[in-house]
Amino acid sequence: MKIPKTMPAAVLMGPEELQVKEVNTPVPGPEDVLIQVKACSICSSDVSLIKAPWPGQPDYGTFIPGHEYSGIVAAVGKTVCELQIGDRVAVEAHFGCTRCPNCRIGNYTACLNWGLENMGHRANGFTTNGGFAEYVVNHVSTTYKIPQWVSYEEASLITNLGCVLYGFETIGGFVVGNHIAVIGEGPLGLISLQVARLLEADMVYLLGIDKYRLKIGSQLGADRIINVLEEDPLPLLKKEMNSGVDLTIEASGSDEGLKIAMRLPKWMGKVLLLGIPDSEVRVDLKELARGNKTIFTVRGEGRTNCGRGVSLLRRRRIDLGSLVTHIFPLEKIDKAFKTHTDKNIDSIKVVVQPS
Amino acid sequence: MKIPKTMPAAVLMGPEELQVKEVNTPVPGPEDVLIQVKACSICSSDVSLIKAPWPGQPDYGTFIPGHEYSGIVAAVGKTVCELQIGDRVAVEAHFGCTRCPNCRIGNYTACLNWGLENMGHRANGFTTNGGFAEYVVNHVSTTYKIPQWVSYEEASLITNLGCVLYGFETIGGFVVGNHIAVIGEGPLGLISLQVARLLEADMVYLLGIDKYRLKIGSQLGADRIINVLEEDPLPLLKKEMNSGVDLTIEASGSDEGLKIAMRLPKWMGKVLLLGIPDSEVRVDLKELARGNKTIFTVRGEGRTNCGRGVSLLRRRRIDLGSLVTHIFPLEKIDKAFKTHTDKNIDSIKVVVQPS
Amino acid sequence: MKIPKTMPAAVLMGPEELQVKEVNTPVPGPEDVLIQVKACSICSSDVSLIKAPWPGQPDYGTFIPGHEYSGIVAAVGKTVCELQIGDRVAVEAHFGCTRCPNCRIGNYTACLNWGLENMGHRANGFTTNGGFAEYVVNHVSTTYKIPQWVSYEEASLITNLGCVLYGFETIGGFVVGNHIAVIGEGPLGLISLQVARLLEADMVYLLGIDKYRLKIGSQLGADRIINVLEEDPLPLLKKEMNSGVDLTIEASGSDEGLKIAMRLPKWMGKVLLLGIPDSEVRVDLKELARGNKTIFTVRGEGRTNCGRGVSLLRRRRIDLGSLVTHIFPLEKIDKAFKTHTDKNIDSIKVVVQPS
Amino acid sequence: MKIPKTMPAAVLMGPEELQVKEVNTPVPGPEDVLIQVKACSICSSDVSLIKAPWPGQPDYGTFIPGHEYSGIVAAVGKTVCELQIGDRVAVEAHFGCTRCPNCRIGNYTACLNWGLENMGHRANGFTTNGGFAEYVVNHVSTTYKIPQWVSYEEASLITNLGCVLYGFETIGGFVVGNHIAVIGEGPLGLISLQVARLLEADMVYLLGIDKYRLKIGSQLGADRIINVLEEDPLPLLKKEMNSGVDLTIEASGSDEGLKIAMRLPKWMGKVLLLGIPDSEVRVDLKELARGNKTIFTVRGEGRTNCGRGVSLLRRRRIDLGSLVTHIFPLEKIDKAFKTHTDKNIDSIKVVVQPS
Repeated sequence: MKIPKTMPAAVLMGPEELQVKEVNTPVPGPEDVLIQVKACSICSSDVSLIKAPWPGQPDYGTFIPGHEYSGIVAAVGKTVCELQIGDRVAVEAHFGCTRCPNCRIGNYTACLNWGLENMGHRANGFTTNGGFAEYVVNHVSTTYKIPQWVSYEEASLITNLGCVLYGFETIGGFVVGNHIAVIGEGPLGLISLQVARLLEADMVYLLGIDKYRLKIGSQLGADRIINVLEEDPLPLLKKEMNSGVDLTIEASGSDEGLKIAMRLPKWMGKVLLLGIPDSEVRVDLKELARGNKTIFTVRGEGRTNCGRGVSLLRRRRIDLGSLVTHIFPLEKIDKAFKTHTDKNIDSIKVVVQPS
Repeated sequence: MKIPKTMPAAVLMGPEELQVKEVNTPVPGPEDVLIQVKACSICSSDVSLIKAPWPGQPDYGTFIPGHEYSGIVAAVGKTVCELQIGDRVAVEAHFGCTRCPNCRIGNYTACLNWGLENMGHRANGFTTNGGFAEYVVNHVSTTYKIPQWVSYEEASLITNLGCVLYGFETIGGFVVGNHIAVIGEGPLGLISLQVARLLEADMVYLLGIDKYRLKIGSQLGADRIINVLEEDPLPLLKKEMNSGVDLTIEASGSDEGLKIAMRLPKWMGKVLLLGIPDSEVRVDLKELARGNKTIFTVRGEGRTNCGRGVSLLRRRRIDLGSLVTHIFPLEKIDKAFKTHTDKNIDSIKVVVQPS
Repeated sequence: MKIPKTMPAAVLMGPEELQVKEVNTPVPGPEDVLIQVKACSICSSDVSLIKAPWPGQPDYGTFIPGHEYSGIVAAVGKTVCELQIGDRVAVEAHFGCTRCPNCRIGNYTACLNWGLENMGHRANGFTTNGGFAEYVVNHVSTTYKIPQWVSYEEASLITNLGCVLYGFETIGGFVVGNHIAVIGEGPLGLISLQVARLLEADMVYLLGIDKYRLKIGSQLGADRIINVLEEDPLPLLKKEMNSGVDLTIEASGSDEGLKIAMRLPKWMGKVLLLGIPDSEVRVDLKELARGNKTIFTVRGEGRTNCGRGVSLLRRRRIDLGSLVTHIFPLEKIDKAFKTHTDKNIDSIKVVVQPS
Repeated sequence: MKIPKTMPAAVLMGPEELQVKEVNTPVPGPEDVLIQVKACSICSSDVSLIKAPWPGQPDYGTFIPGHEYSGIVAAVGKTVCELQIGDRVAVEAHFGCTRCPNCRIGNYTACLNWGLENMGHRANGFTTNGGFAEYVVNHVSTTYKIPQWVSYEEASLITNLGCVLYGFETIGGFVVGNHIAVIGEGPLGLISLQVARLLEADMVYLLGIDKYRLKIGSQLGADRIINVLEEDPLPLLKKEMNSGVDLTIEASGSDEGLKIAMRLPKWMGKVLLLGIPDSEVRVDLKELARGNKTIFTVRGEGRTNCGRGVSLLRRRRIDLGSLVTHIFPLEKIDKAFKTHTDKNIDSIKVVVQPS
């Protein structure tokens, strides 16, 4: 595969200033893979860091965002035997330093050397260059081969799926027969309900406000849809569930969602935070403490959960395709972001195709 | 042992109205033990439920509070072979229904049939009669034999120790080499720091405001005392600990304590709530979620942790005696409660001796 | 529902001497349920204890075996509000003493007061009367309501399903994307492969020797069938799986099965023993120790896994019906046992209908 | 610190042929530390691999064994900011590939790319050069700073302590109040009993055959010493412990030890294998399965347990010094090995001082 010396990429030149320009094609190190990016999906965190820089973010004029992508292997480092040129791959954004206390025990998405590239840490699209470009470099351990029948668009959502699976691993796993409430009907919520169904939850409730997305949630297997603008979920669910759900997955990040999340579980029940709130929230820790409940959180698509996700995709057990509502070429990345943020457009995931 | 037909007991006649009077001595069932109470310690929850009734609390005029007690076996039910008359025992307050989903898996302190005595649930001093009386009935599974050299006063604190140990079990146990911050210098805080030391924490920080109690914390093994009225703990600890502690134990129940509790742990760190806040609290769930941190809570002295605690007492590995600052006979129970609540008196645990 | 004073039951009169005779109908205690048995399935442990008594087994002439049964509620004890007369129920055999260290933490199938009915322990069909009778008494916590569309025959297999689910809980749960080898094509093996499929294993291998049952295994979702009489599984699987499976489930109880079970997992992999070997076995603990592998075992249908199983049955997510190959009335229980043990008859589960 | 171009080292020239000769001093990579070795302890695995090569072992004439060592930092790679030249350090032998499924989740001592140095794996003294030399190279993540008051000899035993701590982590941690039997009175057994004591076991039994070592075990805190040549441990312990211990730690690697190890735990109890048997062993898996027991194993000083061990050493909470019975200079390494293996010499750990 012939690799050009320069490539088109969306470079962040300043706040809210993403500019498609020609830059040098990156060169993979001995343990790296050069990937020709076929699809890079927009995440709300992209919107946030384009607005104002996140910790560890490279300087304006040098930084290419985009952390949810997939593509084709264009070159491999000299120690790489896991993949071959031409392989189709999904990837994850995070590679840890391998030397801090968290990385030593496999929790590389919470690397304590975050943003220190010289110490070995990389988070593509956050602290190192990402996927809104024709080419990107990934450490081999962050790549997953995908078969022909998985589209690049679906595969670009693998970190979303990996994040949800990491959540299910974090809460302790075994869901058969459980009652689960999912709060929030965005991508993480819609994937969470599918995974809850896959792991054989007894009942999955989906709480949200967007009629379009709630309808998709219903198609994706939610047993019960609750539009919280129309129904008060607490009396409704307490009546239906007797003592409460086994697990609430909070995927809205909203104040209201977080408050409800604490209250829905039964005593000994669990709360999993997938949505990250914008600010401090007033919550009822008394109820939490009296009920012997636990709050779990996950940062990113930790441990080997992207690999698990690829297994689900390969076995066609999960529907990520339905979440991809819009596709744009790289040069229309501005329109892609506008589509993502425009409340008047019914979108779930908007995907950019850099090549 | 001759058991009188009536006995003196502190009966709750109305809000704030604890009256010592003669009542019928209770009769143990086939799986029960009748205990002559030698020491019953005052807990802040006693103060709360005397002020206003808790869920499941029996009617005024019939209810004897007191859930932290020890004594001597006076009679045993017909199936009881674990204990003999004359044995000295520590006890725990909770006995589950054995039939709800939580009790089925051993989480009887979070019984979903809470307060339903006919379904089998008992929480002595909360939903069934407790230890501010000459005699009390316990299910045999809630009794623990203690040797001669453990005083009844120390033994009456076993549920405090059991609660702390349940907390350490809940967070996953293995503490060797960890950095731990304990917030709150009350009984649970002072026991937590001792258990953290016993489990070989690398550093134990104690944060509080009461000079008398902080001094005792220092004597009990805290590596570093921080009076939060004099020092801002966050910059201080962040400097000392680099990325944060492995575990914060929040034992103050205060708003300020809870806020700090979320911030002190490093990424992937843990928060354990032992203190139950009075109301809703504004906390930084963003920091929690971004840091992949977990909040654990415990309700009571769950699982077999009172048994573990008795092992520590028997082996003289923990100092509960230093926490007992005042002792009163049952007829002076009013003075005992006043001593407990009077901010001008340096007290930690106040113990009542019903016999 | 009118309950007769006497009932037909299969009483064990001596070794290998099961006699159907009229006995007194049992009377439920305050926390019990009287069940009219509609189906009771034969288990290999029945064959074993009919041959020679197991620990805690009641005297000959008084004992009714049978621990895998279902039926209809005929009467309830005075504290029972969870069920009503006429409800269809699946049950589990074990009820713990609620007072030993294992029962205190919910591990009642490993009750340390095993066989001591006066201490509260019951294992119907093992240490207390079981389901080869028109009526049987169960503690309410061991009963699970089933809907109309679940047949009594399927429901009688709930302890098999509960045992397998307890196994998956015991090994730590989260199976998505894992490679799993099931050794043994009996009921537990055939259910294990279904649960592995349900929990989204990447590949499920079934190893066995019986062509009839292996074919059913294929129909039930095994990705790869290996007849170990025709193929050597180790080179075959090592080639296919590279470093080994994540989990081996040993459900054959055979020497050969156990030896293979230790070798198939990759380093850090797990072995789950569902089949109980008859005697000492020579296994390669060196390989196990060098590979940092773990051997888990389960005793019975522990914790709340029968409840989880009922959820799967209610949601029609598992096929237990295909495992029921023969049905006999109670008076033909001898023929039922002969069918179960006759190697020339293609059977999986043989069910007796006492009413 | 001036580093010579060549150094003395014990090179394995052939089976049983360890030769001290002058070789090139190794050069650290960007993430590495060059360590001047002050103490390197002999392990039984050294004896084994000198006799016949282990998997992944480098060619004769090129390989320097020794994996239990400590020393002083002589040089650091360009990215290393965690340490400075002159620091005293303990080390661990294993560094994983960071890219296989096991390393991805922090289980680097069970790296699936074992022995593949080009893929990034190193196990100093096994697959890459070790500590029987004046200098050795370690990845920075495998080094731990030690204070002045910890001797190099003690520090060279850190992997033994790390291995035992990894075992306690692996079995689930929380030991307070447990009954523990340690089988085997070698270094791992004598450290295990100390850690069991530190974690507040109720009773620690030490089983062995060597009077000299058992006496040291008694001094190190075993509650009860059982010389299995003089007493049959099973009836003795069953009588003393009623239903069995909570945990057996098998550190002898002997057939007899393994058989006893399976039998000592109570139902639901655990077995931890620290000693690796030489061959297949006949064990009672029936007893194991019926008792719902678990067998855990550990490979090496996994996860961050060497760091935990250094905390214990720094806080002077564990006695490794008493285990060091003999010290030799590098040129007398043959005599050191003879002292280690000679059954007529009372030795526990023999340490070589390369510089």
